[in-house]
Amino acid sequence: MREAFKSKYELFRQKTYIIIYGTNTFAGRLFDLILLGLILLSVILVMLETIQGFDVKYHDELVFLEWIITIFFSIEYILRILTIKKPTKYIFSFYGIIDLIATLPMYLSFFITGTSVLTVVRALRLLRLFKILNHPQFSSQSVHLRESIMASRGRILVFMYFVLISCILIGSIMYVVEGPESGFTSIPTAIYWCIVTLTTVGYGDISPITPLGQFIASFVMIMGYGIIAVPTGIVTAEIAKNNLIREQKNKRICKNCASEENSISAKFCSECGHEL
Amino acid sequence: MREAFKSKYELFRQKTYIIIYGTNTFAGRLFDLILLGLILLSVILVMLETIQGFDVKYHDELVFLEWIITIFFSIEYILRILTIKKPTKYIFSFYGIIDLIATLPMYLSFFITGTSVLTVVRALRLLRLFKILNHPQFSSQSVHLRESIMASRGRILVFMYFVLISCILIGSIMYVVEGPESGFTSIPTAIYWCIVTLTTVGYGDISPITPLGQFIASFVMIMGYGIIAVPTGIVTAEIAKNNLIREQKNKRICKNCASEENSISAKFCSECGHEL
Amino acid sequence: MREAFKSKYELFRQKTYIIIYGTNTFAGRLFDLILLGLILLSVILVMLETIQGFDVKYHDELVFLEWIITIFFSIEYILRILTIKKPTKYIFSFYGIIDLIATLPMYLSFFITGTSVLTVVRALRLLRLFKILNHPQFSSQSVHLRESIMASRGRILVFMYFVLISCILIGSIMYVVEGPESGFTSIPTAIYWCIVTLTTVGYGDISPITPLGQFIASFVMIMGYGIIAVPTGIVTAEIAKNNLIREQKNKRICKNCASEENSISAKFCSECGHEL
Amino acid sequence: MREAFKSKYELFRQKTYIIIYGTNTFAGRLFDLILLGLILLSVILVMLETIQGFDVKYHDELVFLEWIITIFFSIEYILRILTIKKPTKYIFSFYGIIDLIATLPMYLSFFITGTSVLTVVRALRLLRLFKILNHPQFSSQSVHLRESIMASRGRILVFMYFVLISCILIGSIMYVVEGPESGFTSIPTAIYWCIVTLTTVGYGDISPITPLGQFIASFVMIMGYGIIAVPTGIVTAEIAKNNLIREQKNKRICKNCASEENSISAKFCSECGHEL
Repeated sequence: MREAFKSKYELFRQKTYIIIYGTNTFAGRLFDLILLGLILLSVILVMLETIQGFDVKYHDELVFLEWIITIFFSIEYILRILTIKKPTKYIFSFYGIIDLIATLPMYLSFFITGTSVLTVVRALRLLRLFKILNHPQFSSQSVHLRESIMASRGRILVFMYFVLISCILIGSIMYVVEGPESGFTSIPTAIYWCIVTLTTVGYGDISPITPLGQFIASFVMIMGYGIIAVPTGIVTAEIAKNNLIREQKNKRICKNCASEENSISAKFCSECGHEL
Repeated sequence: MREAFKSKYELFRQKTYIIIYGTNTFAGRLFDLILLGLILLSVILVMLETIQGFDVKYHDELVFLEWIITIFFSIEYILRILTIKKPTKYIFSFYGIIDLIATLPMYLSFFITGTSVLTVVRALRLLRLFKILNHPQFSSQSVHLRESIMASRGRILVFMYFVLISCILIGSIMYVVEGPESGFTSIPTAIYWCIVTLTTVGYGDISPITPLGQFIASFVMIMGYGIIAVPTGIVTAEIAKNNLIREQKNKRICKNCASEENSISAKFCSECGHEL
Repeated sequence: MREAFKSKYELFRQKTYIIIYGTNTFAGRLFDLILLGLILLSVILVMLETIQGFDVKYHDELVFLEWIITIFFSIEYILRILTIKKPTKYIFSFYGIIDLIATLPMYLSFFITGTSVLTVVRALRLLRLFKILNHPQFSSQSVHLRESIMASRGRILVFMYFVLISCILIGSIMYVVEGPESGFTSIPTAIYWCIVTLTTVGYGDISPITPLGQFIASFVMIMGYGIIAVPTGIVTAEIAKNNLIREQKNKRICKNCASEENSISAKFCSECGHEL
Repeated sequence: MREAFKSKYELFRQKTYIIIYGTNTFAGRLFDLILLGLILLSVILVMLETIQGFDVKYHDELVFLEWIITIFFSIEYILRILTIKKPTKYIFSFYGIIDLIATLPMYLSFFITGTSVLTVVRALRLLRLFKILNHPQFSSQSVHLRESIMASRGRILVFMYFVLISCILIGSIMYVVEGPESGFTSIPTAIYWCIVTLTTVGYGDISPITPLGQFIASFVMIMGYGIIAVPTGIVTAEIAKNNLIREQKNKRICKNCASEENSISAKFCSECGHEL
């Protein structure tokens, strides 16, 4: 009888595994969609909870719904560990850690008040969408993009380092020129202003009022205008290169003369005239 | 006599069709220009109506003019249905639906007050300009642009999804760090702030005041600075590729099959294999 | 004696022509530099005049200096007409018209007060710098840039038209959603807000305060974020293409096999191995 | 005995040289890291000193730490001069001048109060990081970036000159249109506003309030939107070209002369004419 139970449990494990981890069956896809919907709902719930008027009115309903979702997530997390062959691999994977972090805050709220806002980390679970949408063309887009950004990482870091040193120097000059009356109360604040200006965000919470300060600010802005071109240029050139490489990979090779210059739609080799 | 009337009506229909739908005859072009002028005028009228001082002074004149334009549009709409062979095709086409929506609000204002502001949807009729300006070079520009944007749509959506998740997380952190005193009254508001900052709009209606908040904000801005490079890079690379393909396509014409698909370095036509 | 005067005058005309119009002689270059300095000075004078504290203190000196410059410009203008062979050609040229407009405002100030601010049009005379700096490499840069911008003009206009129609529609929606309490006092104001937001300028003089308004605004910003990519992409692709064409023009042609594939630094043809 | 001292001193000089200037030995690397840490610490100290609450509480500690760092820097500077073969070369080099300027302000604070803020120039010493990180791939990134920016310098300057002239003209128009009531108190202020707007920073400290002013501002913003594309395009095209050249250079190595300059489609080496 113990055997029978074990084999039944094994069957249940396999079926659950296909539903929870799989995306090919109908049940698997439905489970993923419901999960994604619940993640989205739980993120929205945390948001609503922070809106005062709303929280006062519907506090109990919000907490009730959050607990239901938390329990669902907890069950899902336990099932994920039980049904997989190597639980440690899942537990210490990127998604595994996020899944754990996503369930903890509500339980923590028993002991410490105000931790429920941490449930917003569930937003990270929204990245699961990419697991569901594992359409080849779509994921190749994503890979392509990541590659381009990775390849240009080095140069962007070099560039950012220069920008930060400039910000420290310009911030200090502005602190001396403008002084605390204009809102430049300290060098860190002035550096904050410089970053706000260079990135063209421009809140206007701190802005120069002396003519000299406005002159330097104008200089910083025009510099920032030119500077914005650099990271854009780096990434663009990288994506363009990547595009070109992909394009070339799609070219057809002639069996007669081994020319690689033929486009994918060509019917005859452009080098020797042999039919492709 | 009925026959004569029918043939006369048929003639009128044909003539009207050429004027309303055609752009090759003088009358057709004149009609399109007058129509465009009236659309522009009606859009300006709705705008003026919302300026308080102006509306008080010239209310009657504004309403009078709007009714004239509405009646003109109504007649035009009826004529468009009467003169075309397949009225249903026009009625359910993109422009057909817009044309209907553009005339309705004024009639609705009999029953419900305040709907006249809806007449601003007439602005969509301004898209007709592209029908009038159907110069081949011009419309190819438009097609070329749409193609590039369409081709980069996938990657931009992937990118936007990442940005939105980041905004939710950063917004929540800022809500906890800054609190309602700085204007971060709820997580949705904090997310709104994050979008305002990441897109470098930077209204300044909400801005961090605590040192830690300003530090995180600086980080977000520099991130946004790097991030702005990505969609630009995607679209630019796509347009550049499109340019290159168009350039290459125009290069070599085969004398045998008149194919224009041959690249500049090709020795044999890629369509028929004939020597170039 | 009249003949002698005439020939002397002719000589004076020629010498003056070389100084005023020429840039090759030392005197010609010196004249251009002094002229540019005076233009800059006069622009700065107009600026200083508008600074209240400064104007009150040094009003007489400012007016005196401006009159001296105006008289110098007047004499220069008359000499330019006298010494050139076809005066009408100069008078109706781009620079000729600017030169005239640059001298008139001060004379007009006799009859109408407050016209002295118009002397700022002299800033346009600063474009003369390009005439002085007619170094071939420099002016080729300028031509190259203008070509790229001209070539992408068509597509940018199409794009701008779409953006304007979007702004009218979004502005109207925001006017209805936010209303006059948030600063959206009329549709034109709302359109102004939409342009401020879409271009990521973001003054913050008008900003949405209702949750729905902030949601729509977020959408507009993210749209604007993607939209900023389009003109950048168009211009970049154009410049890149232009660069490529210039690069190819610099390639060397092999005398043996007429291959155009050799780079400018190559010593042997890459197609047939013949010495270049 | 004097000889022995001299040889000992020589040995000390050599050892110190390796530690201070070298980056290959463990001691050399450690020294560089400690130096960089101290530079960073001293920059942070200056920042903290300007934060009022903090300075009042920890003034003595801050000054004490700053003096220790200054003394360390002074000793380092003297050792750098003593151990190098050609001291003048170091003293008048870029880093030599920065190193001197970085130590002076604290000594100056004996005679003049308020100079301690100048110690922030030490931030420039952070550029030393590039000396420490002289990993070939990393420094090639840096060189590559500098080359691209240098190559596009000419065109960006031409462009900036046009933008500045436009700003003067637009600023003057806005000064006339808006007047001092809206914050456009003088033409220089209006030019400052124009730069703030064109670069899409948009503080909002000055913003148009008259309908005409808002209309012109909208025009300026849309112009600025198109204008932002130009420097981006110039830099991007340059980086893309540089990428392409680097890519192509790495493609084909000649077996005869080991030249790496051959493009992928070359059949003969462009340096020695040998068949590839």
